[in-house]
Amino acid sequence: MPDATLLAGLVLGGDPRAIARALTSVERGDAAARSLVKELFPHTGRAQLIGVTGAAGVGKSSLISALTAEWRRRDRTVGVVAVDPTSSITGGALLGDRVRMESLLGDRGVFVRSMATRGAAGGIARATLDAARVLDAAGFQVVLVETIGVGQDELAVAEAVETVLVVEQPGAGDDVQALKAGLLEIADLFVVTKGDQPGADRAVATLRATLALGTTVQSPPILMASAVTNDGIAALADALEAHLGSIDRSARARARAHNELRRILRDDLLRAALARGGDPDLTNASAMVAAGELDPYSAAEKLTARVWPASHATHS
Amino acid sequence: MPDATLLAGLVLGGDPRAIARALTSVERGDAAARSLVKELFPHTGRAQLIGVTGAAGVGKSSLISALTAEWRRRDRTVGVVAVDPTSSITGGALLGDRVRMESLLGDRGVFVRSMATRGAAGGIARATLDAARVLDAAGFQVVLVETIGVGQDELAVAEAVETVLVVEQPGAGDDVQALKAGLLEIADLFVVTKGDQPGADRAVATLRATLALGTTVQSPPILMASAVTNDGIAALADALEAHLGSIDRSARARARAHNELRRILRDDLLRAALARGGDPDLTNASAMVAAGELDPYSAAEKLTARVWPASHATHS
Repeated sequence: MPDATLLAGLVLGGDPRAIARALTSVERGDAAARSLVKELFPHTGRAQLIGVTGAAGVGKSSLISALTAEWRRRDRTVGVVAVDPTSSITGGALLGDRVRMESLLGDRGVFVRSMATRGAAGGIARATLDAARVLDAAGFQVVLVETIGVGQDELAVAEAVETVLVVEQPGAGDDVQALKAGLLEIADLFVVTKGDQPGADRAVATLRATLALGTTVQSPPILMASAVTNDGIAALADALEAHLGSIDRSARARARAHNELRRILRDDLLRAALARGGDPDLTNASAMVAAGELDPYSAAEKLTARVWPASHATHS
Repeated sequence: MPDATLLAGLVLGGDPRAIARALTSVERGDAAARSLVKELFPHTGRAQLIGVTGAAGVGKSSLISALTAEWRRRDRTVGVVAVDPTSSITGGALLGDRVRMESLLGDRGVFVRSMATRGAAGGIARATLDAARVLDAAGFQVVLVETIGVGQDELAVAEAVETVLVVEQPGAGDDVQALKAGLLEIADLFVVTKGDQPGADRAVATLRATLALGTTVQSPPILMASAVTNDGIAALADALEAHLGSIDRSARARARAHNELRRILRDDLLRAALARGGDPDLTNASAMVAAGELDPYSAAEKLTARVWPASHATHS
């Protein structure tokens, strides 16, 4: 606990090495990370949290670099957490994308972290949100969370930011990639990247038409930007800020807290159950399920009843 | 419960409409689904479970169509569960991929289901695995689970099949897409699709070189196939069968059961805790977290202690 306090103090002071260490801790998601987040928590809630999501290769990293440079011109500090599924080959980001951010790395007003989330206790969503908290507590004014692909992790991350920016690219062969990927429901804002390339206009038009088809409410804004020419980047930064002004931040914060708390509680209850002697039971039950002697649902019900009998209702 | 028994009986008899209804039930993941899976469970474990994973657009669906046709020539029946993140616009698969499977749909020896997993209680992984169980119980000899993208859901699905086939395409602009996406660790077999196109050989060579870099153990086999010319499809079917013969199926089954059971138990414990009066507490605690008065970890610990005091250790 004193370690967590010490580290937290350094993070709050903006010390880059302490921030890096804190991020490594929340990546692991262990007890030390939990203590650290408890210490940092009172100092969070000031950053604008923006999720940037879209398929691999649509230009998220280049866009984030350009946006970050724009915010720096506006004297805002920027933290970036990139969720990059890890290969055991390198233990982290393999090639390419992260390198593009390097030009910004000499700047104390920017902190970029590629998360190695494989094996994090509590999963990708928890590690990512806690990493965003670390950067928030360290004083970064805008915190971007970049996610690749689609899945429940991405939805969990999207639930936990204030603004979700969905990134598309022109002429990807499938004009409705974003919709197909289920990103529509979570998008607060769309941006079509590579706006300097032919087909970008058509991609915007197609996206607009497709969105209009499916919704009765107003579709999210669709912008176009180019990280190469920098066209549209300032307008995108403006739109992201405008979005923050348009939402009920405290309602979002409550929904966010509810979801996060459910996830943590679920993991804590499992851990408590296993610590109370359920672990050998789980192994035995797994063997029975594997042998086809017991279905997994009946096994889970037996385990729940054993570690926590219904008659012991202790809540009043 | 009698409904579950009746439906289970029809599924075991291979009735297509009953299978479709059973799949809809496990998609919802509600209490009826649980009863159904309990009924079907004793009749599962016969199918070969194969996961097919890779980024969007690499040709998974075409490959699955070609493989399915090959298995049908070998007189094997095939079930396919495709995990397709849902758009609310259509409430299901949007366009394209599923259509390609249509040519096989007149055949009772094939069953294809695109899962609408958004909002499934227990999540995508559970719905998918239970869908595979339905098809297994219905007597399909090969059950393919197709997943798009990467994330903990995909890992959970990969943990639950016997063979993981990772699909790559030539010249995707990033030769190490699969590795970057963290698919290496879970791959039992790689296939480079579109083997009729230029660049396929190079993609295989690059993949082989990259795999060799990172591993001390033997790399998984890398095959090349074309759904257009059908080249390599029979060899791929052979390789998938050979893989099944090479693994310790019962060890995999135990690991699989352990993971699945942990997930179900975790969800069951949360539900039980909330049912025991924790739900208003959760709402209150969420409001405190949102207001910045309490961090989420301390909140989860308080809730755990309240619904399940440490002194009430009931396991002996």
